[in-house]
Amino acid sequence: MSFLAFSAQWLPLCLLILFTSVSAIPHNNIPRLSVLGQKFLRDPSVTVSASVWKDLKTYFYNQTLDHFNYNPQSYAKFKQRYLMNSKYWGGANASAPIFVYLGAEEPIDGDIEVVGFLPENAPRFNALMVYIEHRFYGKSIPFETMEEAMTARGYFNSAQAIADYAEVILYLKKKLSAHNSPIIVIGGSYGGMLAAWFRLKYPHIALGALASSAPILYFDDITPQDGYYSIVTKDFKEASETCYETIKQSWSVIDEVASQKNGLSILSQRFMTCSKLNNTIELKNYLELIYCQAAQYNSPPEYPVTVVCGGIDGASQGTDILGRIFSGVVAYTGNISCHMIEDTSNIETALGWHWQKCSEMVIPLGRGSNDTMFFAKPFILSSFIEDCKSMYGVPPRPHWVTTYYGGHDINMVLKRFASNIIFSNGLRDPYSSGGVLKDISDSVVAVHTVNGSHCLDILWKSQSDPKWLTNQRKEEVKIIKGWIKKYYDDLLSSSKN
Amino acid sequence: MSFLAFSAQWLPLCLLILFTSVSAIPHNNIPRLSVLGQKFLRDPSVTVSASVWKDLKTYFYNQTLDHFNYNPQSYAKFKQRYLMNSKYWGGANASAPIFVYLGAEEPIDGDIEVVGFLPENAPRFNALMVYIEHRFYGKSIPFETMEEAMTARGYFNSAQAIADYAEVILYLKKKLSAHNSPIIVIGGSYGGMLAAWFRLKYPHIALGALASSAPILYFDDITPQDGYYSIVTKDFKEASETCYETIKQSWSVIDEVASQKNGLSILSQRFMTCSKLNNTIELKNYLELIYCQAAQYNSPPEYPVTVVCGGIDGASQGTDILGRIFSGVVAYTGNISCHMIEDTSNIETALGWHWQKCSEMVIPLGRGSNDTMFFAKPFILSSFIEDCKSMYGVPPRPHWVTTYYGGHDINMVLKRFASNIIFSNGLRDPYSSGGVLKDISDSVVAVHTVNGSHCLDILWKSQSDPKWLTNQRKEEVKIIKGWIKKYYDDLLSSSKN
Repeated sequence: MSFLAFSAQWLPLCLLILFTSVSAIPHNNIPRLSVLGQKFLRDPSVTVSASVWKDLKTYFYNQTLDHFNYNPQSYAKFKQRYLMNSKYWGGANASAPIFVYLGAEEPIDGDIEVVGFLPENAPRFNALMVYIEHRFYGKSIPFETMEEAMTARGYFNSAQAIADYAEVILYLKKKLSAHNSPIIVIGGSYGGMLAAWFRLKYPHIALGALASSAPILYFDDITPQDGYYSIVTKDFKEASETCYETIKQSWSVIDEVASQKNGLSILSQRFMTCSKLNNTIELKNYLELIYCQAAQYNSPPEYPVTVVCGGIDGASQGTDILGRIFSGVVAYTGNISCHMIEDTSNIETALGWHWQKCSEMVIPLGRGSNDTMFFAKPFILSSFIEDCKSMYGVPPRPHWVTTYYGGHDINMVLKRFASNIIFSNGLRDPYSSGGVLKDISDSVVAVHTVNGSHCLDILWKSQSDPKWLTNQRKEEVKIIKGWIKKYYDDLLSSSKN
Repeated sequence: MSFLAFSAQWLPLCLLILFTSVSAIPHNNIPRLSVLGQKFLRDPSVTVSASVWKDLKTYFYNQTLDHFNYNPQSYAKFKQRYLMNSKYWGGANASAPIFVYLGAEEPIDGDIEVVGFLPENAPRFNALMVYIEHRFYGKSIPFETMEEAMTARGYFNSAQAIADYAEVILYLKKKLSAHNSPIIVIGGSYGGMLAAWFRLKYPHIALGALASSAPILYFDDITPQDGYYSIVTKDFKEASETCYETIKQSWSVIDEVASQKNGLSILSQRFMTCSKLNNTIELKNYLELIYCQAAQYNSPPEYPVTVVCGGIDGASQGTDILGRIFSGVVAYTGNISCHMIEDTSNIETALGWHWQKCSEMVIPLGRGSNDTMFFAKPFILSSFIEDCKSMYGVPPRPHWVTTYYGGHDINMVLKRFASNIIFSNGLRDPYSSGGVLKDISDSVVAVHTVNGSHCLDILWKSQSDPKWLTNQRKEEVKIIKGWIKKYYDDLLSSSKN
C-alpha cells in the first residue's frame, strides 16, 4: 500500500521535471533536494501526530522583497508565512531555546508533517518551535500567482532567503522579548544547506545549525560530477550484484529493442506506459528516476533499493532483462494501471526549484559511459548555461555559491573559523557525496551513518528504527545540548562582568 | 603651511555636506569616515614615496551590478578599478601573501597615497599589493556620470561592495594561479568596517583582516549616540580645561550676539565669513566641524586639538570669547582671506557618502544639551527617516547593518566564532567610541593606543612617530605574521594528508 501511495502522490511531482515544459532543459533527472519523498516510503506504522498541527499557529511577516538593493521596487513587501508552537517553550525569562526550521523548496506544510526532530526534542529542551517558509513557495509567494512571481524571479535566491530568515528571527526575538534565547536552525537537504550557510553568515542570530543531508560541496566541481550516481550504483550493487548487473545491461537492451521495427510500441507495451513512448529517453529517465529515488530515500524498514532489487531478482526464471526491470518497477510503484502518467499538480514547486537550479544552485551532476550503472549523461556547463539562458533570458551564475558561501578547501577555512554546525548524512544517500563527512573542528562536526539515507535523522522516530539511527539522533541532541550549555555559561559570565 | 594646505584642499570637501544641496538634511556634521583628512595634517617631513605610483599598475574588472538578484538588469556590468604592485611579491609558487586594501567612500587614489601600511610591510611579507576601489566612487562608477549613477543608487551599498571584492580577489587568485596565497584585507574607517565584515562574511577568501578605526558598533544604538562628541569633548578638555570651557560657553555667546540688532552681520565680520551668515547654525556647524576634524585627526606631531586650543588660550589678554574662538579657528586653518567658502569640488564623494548614510550606513550620532562641550543636537530617528525619504524617495534601513553584520553582544557572538581580525583604534579618535576596544578571543583582537587618532596606524611612518605608534604597528605586523605562519602550517599538514 505504501508504494501505491507513493506512486499516486509523490512520484508524479518528481516526474514533472521530466514531463512538463520545464523539462525542455536536459537537467539532471534526480529527485529534488528535499526531505520529502520519504513521507510515502516510510514505515506505515508511523502516523504523524495530529498535535503537530493542533499546537501550531500560523503568522505572516511583512517581508522585504530585496534586502541587498535600495531601489524603490526593492522595498516592496510580501507576506512570508511562519508557524510557531510554544507548547513546550520555557519562555523568554528562562532564556529557553528556539528551534527554527528553515523552509526549503516546497510549501512548509510537508516538512512540518514529516520532520519529527523539532517536536520530538522540544520538550527536553523547553524549546519554542518556529517554522519559516522559503520565499516563492507555498503561501510565501511575493505575488498573486506563481506565474506572476516568476516574472520577478530575480529576487528568488538563497541569499535573499536566508536574509528573510534573519529578519523574521530578529523580529520574533524582539516580539517575544527573548533577547537571550539561543537560536538553533535546522534544515534538511537544500534546507540543510541554508541552515549551515545561515550559521556561517548570521552567527549573531543563530547559535548553531543542524544541517541534515546538505550537499554544500556539490558546487563548482568540488565533488566529482558522478558522485551522486556512483552512490546510487553502490547502493544497488551492495543490495544485489545481479540486480546491479541487470540494470547496467538494461540500457543497451532498451536501445536494441527500440531499434527494431515497432520497437517503441514494444517498449511501451512492456512497460505499460500510459501513452506511447516518443523515444527511449523518456523510458530511461523514468527508470533512472526510480533508481535514484529509491537510493536517495533508501530508508528502513523497507529499504526501497532492496524492494526494487527484490522485484528484479525475484522475477520468475527465464524472464528477460526488460521483464526483470519492469518487475523491479512494479515492486516499487505497486500495481498501477499504467506508468509514466503526466501530472500537473504541484507545478509551483517544480517550477521554483527548476529556476533555482538554473540560476544560483548550479549542481553539476553528470556521469560518463562506464563509471556507474547508468547510461552516459555528461554535465556540460556551457550547454547548461545556454539552455538556462534560452529558457529564462539570463544565464546561471555557476560560481556564485562558492564565491558567497565558500566550499573549496572547507577544512582549511573552517578549521579556525566558525563553530556549532552539525553536518549529518547517511552514506547511502547519493547526495552525501557532496556532504561534509569529516569533522572540521571540535564544533563543526560530521555525524553520519553508514546505512542512512536522505534526511533520515530529522524525520519522525519509529518503533522500527535501527539502533544506528537512534544513536545518530542521540548524538546530535547531545551536541546541541553542549552548544546551549556553553552558551548559558557564557551568558552567565558575561552578565557578571 | 600644512594648515593652509588643509584648508584649501580638504576642508571644503567636508564642508560640502554643510553647504551644498546635500545638506538639506540635518545630518550629523562630522568628518566622513575616512582615512583621509589626515593627509594634510601630517608631518610635512613625510613625503609620499613616488614609487607608490611607479610600481602600481591599473586594471579594470568587469563587475556585476547586482550580486544578489537575477533580474536581467542585475547582470549589467561595470568597470571596477583595481591596482596591483607586484614588486615585492614572492609569487604563487611560494604561496606568498596578498595584501588587499579595500577601498572606501572616495576614489582609491587618495588612500594609496596616504596609507603606508601596505608598501611598508610588503617587502618583509613578500606580499603582493592590491588596491580595489569601492563601487560608485572614483573610476568605478557604474554609469557615465555620478548623476546618472545616482538614479541607480539602489545598487550602491556595502553588501554589494564586499561581494565585488570577493569576485575581484577570486578572479585575481585564479589569474595569478595563486590558489594558496593567503589574503589579508586591510581597510580604514568605513573601509575598516568593510575589512572586518569581509573576513566575517568571506572567511574562505580572506585569511584575516586589519580593520583600522572601524566603528562597527556605531549602529542601532549599540554605542551611545553622543559617544563621538563625548570623545571630542574629552580630547579638548585634556588638551586644555580653559579651552574646553571657552568652547562650551561660546555657543550661547553666539546666540546672544545674533539676537542683537545686526547680530548676524557682527558675527559674519568677527568670523570673516566669505558671505554674510544667514543664521547662527551655519557658523556653529563650521566651528563644530573644525573641532571634530581636529579631534578625529588629532595626530602627532602637531596634534590639531592642541593647535586649536593654542589659538584659543593664547589669544591676548582681554580677548572676549568670540575672539578666542576665532583665534582657535585661524590657528587651525591658517590665515585665509575668508572663512566658510562654498566649494563644489569632489561633489561625487560627498554625494555618495551622503546616500550611503541615508540608506544603509545609519550611524546615529547625536547629543543632548549638557553631555558634551557642544550645543544640543539630538538624533531623532523618525525625523532622520523622513528627511532621507523625502530626499531619496526611499527610507533608510536603520537596522539592516546589525541584521546583516551583527554588532549586538559582539563579544558573546564572536568569542566562539570567527578568527583573525585586528580592530585597531586610537582612543582620541571620536569614532573609537564605536570601535571594538577589547580582545574578543585569541585571534579577534583589539589593538589600541591611548593617544592615537583616526586610522593613524595604517598611515605612512614618520621619523617623528612616537614610540606608542611604532609599537602599535609592530604589534599588528606580529599578529598578521602569526596568522600567516599558522596558515602555512595548516597548508603543509593538509598537503601531507
